[in-house]
Amino acid sequence: MPIEYEKELKVTETGIPGLEVIDLAVHGDARGWFKENWQREKMVALGVPDKRWVQNNLSFNEKRGATRGVHAEPWDKLISVATGSVFGAWVDLRAGSATYGRVYTCVLDPSKAIYVPRGVGNSYQALEDGTAYAYLVDAHWSLEQKRTYTFVNLADPDLAIGWPIPLEECEISEADRNHPLLKDVKPMLPRRT
Amino acid sequence: MPIEYEKELKVTETGIPGLEVIDLAVHGDARGWFKENWQREKMVALGVPDKRWVQNNLSFNEKRGATRGVHAEPWDKLISVATGSVFGAWVDLRAGSATYGRVYTCVLDPSKAIYVPRGVGNSYQALEDGTAYAYLVDAHWSLEQKRTYTFVNLADPDLAIGWPIPLEECEISEADRNHPLLKDVKPMLPRRT
Ligand SMILES: Cc1cn([C@H]2C[C@H](O)[C@@H](COP(=O)(O)OP(=O)(O)O[C@H]3O[C@H](CO)[C@@H](O)[C@H](O)[C@H]3O)O2)c(=O)[nH]c1=O
Ligand SMILES: Cc1cn([C@H]2C[C@H](O)[C@@H](COP(=O)(O)OP(=O)(O)O[C@H]3O[C@H](CO)[C@@H](O)[C@H](O)[C@H]3O)O2)c(=O)[nH]c1=O
Repeated sequence: MPIEYEKELKVTETGIPGLEVIDLAVHGDARGWFKENWQREKMVALGVPDKRWVQNNLSFNEKRGATRGVHAEPWDKLISVATGSVFGAWVDLRAGSATYGRVYTCVLDPSKAIYVPRGVGNSYQALEDGTAYAYLVDAHWSLEQKRTYTFVNLADPDLAIGWPIPLEECEISEADRNHPLLKDVKPMLPRRT
Repeated sequence: MPIEYEKELKVTETGIPGLEVIDLAVHGDARGWFKENWQREKMVALGVPDKRWVQNNLSFNEKRGATRGVHAEPWDKLISVATGSVFGAWVDLRAGSATYGRVYTCVLDPSKAIYVPRGVGNSYQALEDGTAYAYLVDAHWSLEQKRTYTFVNLADPDLAIGWPIPLEECEISEADRNHPLLKDVKPMLPRRT
């Protein structure tokens, strides 16, 4: 997919409070291109929360169609795409949220990032072979912490996510195939303070 | 290039003080793979400096051979590869360093990162089409700051960097073709405190 170059850095609301889409400036030249995925000063000035990221993770998808999610995790994330593109779907799973259960979807290519707050469920489908998906998080992951995630099923008809590639044709982990339906989900509680 | 999976996280010295190679644990599965590029807690425990990263940058290289550098910048960096691979070359350009002018080279694929301290010159050559090179820095870039970089020429015979692809066949920016030789370089001074 061709990338749009030289967009202006911009933050857009999504209808889910705290979930923010970010247009990135990608600079093309004869070698390829260059971009800033995270630029603390400029992004914070535009309203993105000022985070200290402690992990930078990357998931690589061999084939178009690989689908992961829906995972609501106990930390904030800034997600972007290094190569390829994804169809992303985000679901508000925060206990007491006015938009609980609301879904937001959009395509992320290298010129677009998204800020995902704690408790908003995250999922994506790779739209191209060799799609690399990168993100920053503000807390350390551990296998034990995984028990505190809130999960919901990618195929839940109540979410009615319009996956571009039918899920039956997609590479999906065993764990992700077996997440509960929204009606059975235990919402994520606010951080204990 | 096939990636080595499930290595143990490990930090290795390079002969240039402060320049450290990091082996990353890459977890492969049917979808592709997953890795932590930066994991503050684990990496700091292994001796990597504890940084607050304020930018996360990505440079994408369309074609094998694209070569960038040698740039010594006034900030610390943690460099990794999202897809593809690079031959990297690092040159100590710090005024007063016991290893001034020393070169370290290695191949970085997704299973290997490198911590590059302020004043160590950085350069790389993409070894595969579609190579995405990602890094974290602890200070904000600006066009004005670029005047405070220290540059040296990729082709300098005194550095004698063994580029796998001859530089004449490579896509290189006009700026990078015109950097001075090591003998004419003004070394980078320590940070004013
Ligand atoms: C999230 C995470 C996972 N891992 C390891 C555990 C597994 O060996 C491997 C893959 O983990 P999984 O839990 O299957 O990851 P996956 O289904 O891709 O989901 C992860 O990656 C997704 C995006 O890539 C996130 O949206 C999920 O929240 C996150 O859990 O990586 C780590 O070593 N560090 C991590 O931070
Ligand atoms: C470094 C940097 C650059 N830029 C812009 C300026 C240009 O429009 C475009 C490319 O910048 P150049 O200076 O040509 O970048 P390049 O030769 O690839 O070198 C950069 O990228 C290299 C690695 O990719 C680094 O080792 C260099 O130190 C860094 O300067 O990106 C940013 O917007 N933010 C940045 O942080």
